[in-house]
Amino acid sequence: MDAKYQDLPHVVIVGSGFGGLNAARSLAKAPVRVTLVDRHNYHLFVPLLYQVATAGVSPDEIAYPLHAIFRGQKNLEIRLADVGSIDYAGKKLVTSAGDIPYDALILSAGSATNLFGMEAALDHALQLKDLEDAERVRNHILQQVELASQESDAEARCARLTFVIVGGGPTGVEISGALSELVRLVLDRDYHLDPADFKILLVEATGRLLEQFSPFLAGKTESALHKKGVEIRLNAHVTGFDGYNVTLKDGESIPARTLIWAAGVKANPLAGAAGSPTARQGRVKVLPTLQTPEHPEIFAIGDAAYIEQRGQMLPMLAQVAIQGGRHAARNVVRFLAGQPLQPFVYHDPGTLATIGRNQAVAHIAGLDLWGFPAWFVWVVVHIYQLIGHRNRILVMIEWIRDYLFYNSAVLIISKWEDRLDDAQTK
Amino acid sequence: MDAKYQDLPHVVIVGSGFGGLNAARSLAKAPVRVTLVDRHNYHLFVPLLYQVATAGVSPDEIAYPLHAIFRGQKNLEIRLADVGSIDYAGKKLVTSAGDIPYDALILSAGSATNLFGMEAALDHALQLKDLEDAERVRNHILQQVELASQESDAEARCARLTFVIVGGGPTGVEISGALSELVRLVLDRDYHLDPADFKILLVEATGRLLEQFSPFLAGKTESALHKKGVEIRLNAHVTGFDGYNVTLKDGESIPARTLIWAAGVKANPLAGAAGSPTARQGRVKVLPTLQTPEHPEIFAIGDAAYIEQRGQMLPMLAQVAIQGGRHAARNVVRFLAGQPLQPFVYHDPGTLATIGRNQAVAHIAGLDLWGFPAWFVWVVVHIYQLIGHRNRILVMIEWIRDYLFYNSAVLIISKWEDRLDDAQTK
Repeated sequence: MDAKYQDLPHVVIVGSGFGGLNAARSLAKAPVRVTLVDRHNYHLFVPLLYQVATAGVSPDEIAYPLHAIFRGQKNLEIRLADVGSIDYAGKKLVTSAGDIPYDALILSAGSATNLFGMEAALDHALQLKDLEDAERVRNHILQQVELASQESDAEARCARLTFVIVGGGPTGVEISGALSELVRLVLDRDYHLDPADFKILLVEATGRLLEQFSPFLAGKTESALHKKGVEIRLNAHVTGFDGYNVTLKDGESIPARTLIWAAGVKANPLAGAAGSPTARQGRVKVLPTLQTPEHPEIFAIGDAAYIEQRGQMLPMLAQVAIQGGRHAARNVVRFLAGQPLQPFVYHDPGTLATIGRNQAVAHIAGLDLWGFPAWFVWVVVHIYQLIGHRNRILVMIEWIRDYLFYNSAVLIISKWEDRLDDAQTK
Repeated sequence: MDAKYQDLPHVVIVGSGFGGLNAARSLAKAPVRVTLVDRHNYHLFVPLLYQVATAGVSPDEIAYPLHAIFRGQKNLEIRLADVGSIDYAGKKLVTSAGDIPYDALILSAGSATNLFGMEAALDHALQLKDLEDAERVRNHILQQVELASQESDAEARCARLTFVIVGGGPTGVEISGALSELVRLVLDRDYHLDPADFKILLVEATGRLLEQFSPFLAGKTESALHKKGVEIRLNAHVTGFDGYNVTLKDGESIPARTLIWAAGVKANPLAGAAGSPTARQGRVKVLPTLQTPEHPEIFAIGDAAYIEQRGQMLPMLAQVAIQGGRHAARNVVRFLAGQPLQPFVYHDPGTLATIGRNQAVAHIAGLDLWGFPAWFVWVVVHIYQLIGHRNRILVMIEWIRDYLFYNSAVLIISKWEDRLDDAQTK
């Protein structure tokens, strides 16, 4: 950072997800110096994480180096560190790379998987929150198919080919659809598995899928998944998974070697350290200005913040974080200048969820879309939102290749879990 | 595999590197059934491994799934397994996925890093033999530069920015050149490091670089590396590295946090299990027919095999393995049919080593090439040899982008070694 910025007020941003990234960019021309703190040196495009998990794209195609993003922004410094806590009195962030004093703090620490207290019972469940998780899911799925092809015992083979996905929200729907296409359209050419051995089970605790969408679109989604061979269990609760059997609340036990937990998220625990009470999902309650009530110099946005508008909590979506990040940046500048702050108003640009080839659901401008039109919108929006020309071009190539030739990009087991003798252990 | 192949003689191939891959492909139309055994589910294009290590290409761009390669080959089965030993009497391979009986065996297990008995002293050295190694090197380099930028102590900063590469063969030269370009042309834009802090040291035990090439080309290479700021130490022997200091045989100690060992390879220890005496580098001595003298049904090729031609040992090169694989396949068929076997004759197509942008050395058809012409040949040959259109197109895009914009592909620290508090520990 140039020396001329040293005396300006210091804005510290925690997290380089959609919220933190947009807050940081919006402060490019503001009379402040900015430190962006993250434990990774890249911005992760989370909406496509499920495609890394299902071999559709390569991990580095959805990650973009922070230094490259902010190369032109002279008032910004990047600090790789784990954040430990916030010292309100001393106005400093306590991190693994030392204390970082701030004049204003924007907390955009994102979310973590919510296992609802079942951590011990779900010790063997796979998650999907970061790049390592996603690569682990891909390796695990490919490994199970590989081992199933070597397995002579029919029961053991079926268990390896049973994939249980918990959570009927967009992530659960996306994984189920993509996994079905990966196994039936791609892997089956190499392994010639008996379709009867193979099962994808989508388990949802409520009475329907995709509660963000209309019942009509939820119905469209159910029938599309059904056609893909995905079995949907509504009003079902998973209570445990020991790596061999998934247990449901009603006592049923399903032999399966894979459980992917997409049933809930909660704010990153750091939100609780913001010195203000937390609400649902551990999100910190903020004022309409995005400030925490107790510490006006601390702002919270995105998944970390609990905000109600028209009596409804704003959901944990990229768009909420993006708009919140931009608004927090403007309010931070006003705050530091002693000017009155503006309340945040979220403009819903619409909601999208994809199911598979030529199939998605969307609610845009009050209209319900489904099938090819919704899918086309989804593809364009996601390519457009990716950061960097390299990633846009590469993801486009992967998708066109996959679309035309049914050839998934990354069928590589980069790390074998439990080494190869796993086949003999069961 | 189709049932009609079940009664054919069984050829088992160990290893899916250049040798095993080409042997397997050459047996496509032969009256045999083939089992290809490897611990990975992909063929690795080793010549570009150093580019993964220096952020030039993505790991999955140089790995190609074995199942995709052999999709059309009906007489071949792939078995993912760790090979334990060979049971000569019972004619079976003992693996982590069970015993595999064979009628003929082609041993193409490749090579491993040779630390010449200094394993304990070089415990902290980085290697470059597989995809995990290469990603670890990339993460480590990016991490050191990141931590150096946070380091206020000048000595500690210099140690983080000192990269010692051991071995003046093609791999050592390639890493040195690529690392210099990564740090000086790419990372420096983001970190603005003092060039005086930064050091790449290439240490070679003999009196010159690239002993495979003429002294003239070795001289060209030395001056090209010198211009890139690489310091070359000839006749120097590294005897230890504890993670903080590199020690040389003459007693000198060089503060450095990175040592990359490219000074030697030896045959995979499995070669020693072939039941025949081993020669230099642990390679198994074979007859001109590529058979082991003691067990005519066991063939060895590539890095695993010791073969002399015109009084010279064939080197551990991709081309030797490729031609050996094809020849072993033909001889295996003759052996199983009771026909006389043919001796293997290696045709040297030339040797290439790259130094960096527009710079390589080559010895082709008796001619020494250097500079841009050699580099252009190198680029074309390597793109051409990559397997699969996806990988060719993607690597081409990465290289064009890097060439035009000095923008390395994968500046992602996918895994932070020793976590972030490393900065405080030293």
